[in-house]
Amino acid sequence: MKAKTETRRQAILDIAEQVFAELGFERASMDEVSKRGGGSKATIYNYFASKEELFLQVVYRATEAQFLAIHDTLDASEPNVQLALTRFGERFVNLLHSRDVKAMRRLVIAEGGRAGLGPHFHALGPQRSHVMIQAFLERAMESGKLRRADSNVAAYHFKALLESELMEDFQFHLVDVKAADGADNIRTKVARAVDVFMAAYGPRPTA
Amino acid sequence: MKAKTETRRQAILDIAEQVFAELGFERASMDEVSKRGGGSKATIYNYFASKEELFLQVVYRATEAQFLAIHDTLDASEPNVQLALTRFGERFVNLLHSRDVKAMRRLVIAEGGRAGLGPHFHALGPQRSHVMIQAFLERAMESGKLRRADSNVAAYHFKALLESELMEDFQFHLVDVKAADGADNIRTKVARAVDVFMAAYGPRPTA
Repeated sequence: MKAKTETRRQAILDIAEQVFAELGFERASMDEVSKRGGGSKATIYNYFASKEELFLQVVYRATEAQFLAIHDTLDASEPNVQLALTRFGERFVNLLHSRDVKAMRRLVIAEGGRAGLGPHFHALGPQRSHVMIQAFLERAMESGKLRRADSNVAAYHFKALLESELMEDFQFHLVDVKAADGADNIRTKVARAVDVFMAAYGPRPTA
Repeated sequence: MKAKTETRRQAILDIAEQVFAELGFERASMDEVSKRGGGSKATIYNYFASKEELFLQVVYRATEAQFLAIHDTLDASEPNVQLALTRFGERFVNLLHSRDVKAMRRLVIAEGGRAGLGPHFHALGPQRSHVMIQAFLERAMESGKLRRADSNVAAYHFKALLESELMEDFQFHLVDVKAADGADNIRTKVARAVDVFMAAYGPRPTA
């Protein structure tokens, strides 16, 4: 067994990315990745335990930079917290409900009980988003732009509200609302979610 | 092919329920259901297209009555809306995050794209809960116990808040919070969710 190298791993991911893009998850196979120069199947399995894990890593690699860029829009210097949360929320929800990220999330939900896959991807992705959101809320609370509250709980509430009108479409494979109505739809839903969040966590109106 | 009958269908579900309970989803098989008197495999497949669908129907049958009983706790005559939502919320979340219902939800998320399974189960379950919650909120708005708002959107916000602190545990197979900390944990999380909901949708404080 050859030593694992990052270069080799990235090369497999490059090929797998093409295979998934062309054939889709169901029709893609480790065989096909191997045939197109990914190395022997034994080599591929040395890096990725299953087609599921390979797919997760492909989507993760393709979207990590986008998530990080979206985290950067959580601008603590923006005086208008509602505006900052709205800007962030629109981008975050658009990415979360993009086709590949939805497919990745469904796979984690289905397969995440195996071999610690769920907690692994939670730490790689959602946990990092959570930390960024919580830190932003904490600073806004410290500066009096939000009420003093548990910023960890507030971050869970904020994220749940952002996706509240889309989660059932996602979970039950209903019409793809995003595709059907486009960005305006997301914008309206995010605006409503931020309104509710601000009603609960915004500064108390002064008499 | 014999005509499908409800009696036959229920008999298969009875046997399948035992098989899933004893062996768990992974180890259970259509073969085993057949061997224990469920009929030939052809007969079973005549009623249920896959092991996944059979499992979904077993859990659905076992939990439908519980969901209906929980819907009944949404008592429109209760003068204290916050109390009514809290009572309902605790029971609803406890059932949604029970072992079998979580397994059912994960399966629908994973397999729901096939043969209309997702929309089918959405109509059987979550859609009925949504209608009941929306109707309760609508009446509370009419009677001035909640602010006038879109009750459909408010129902989505309420449900998302209820599960907000549990969804990542569910999606990423993290520690089973419910098992770890029991009903008190759910109670605290539901209380926080209802507080946020009431801050946004409760009657405006009079000057």
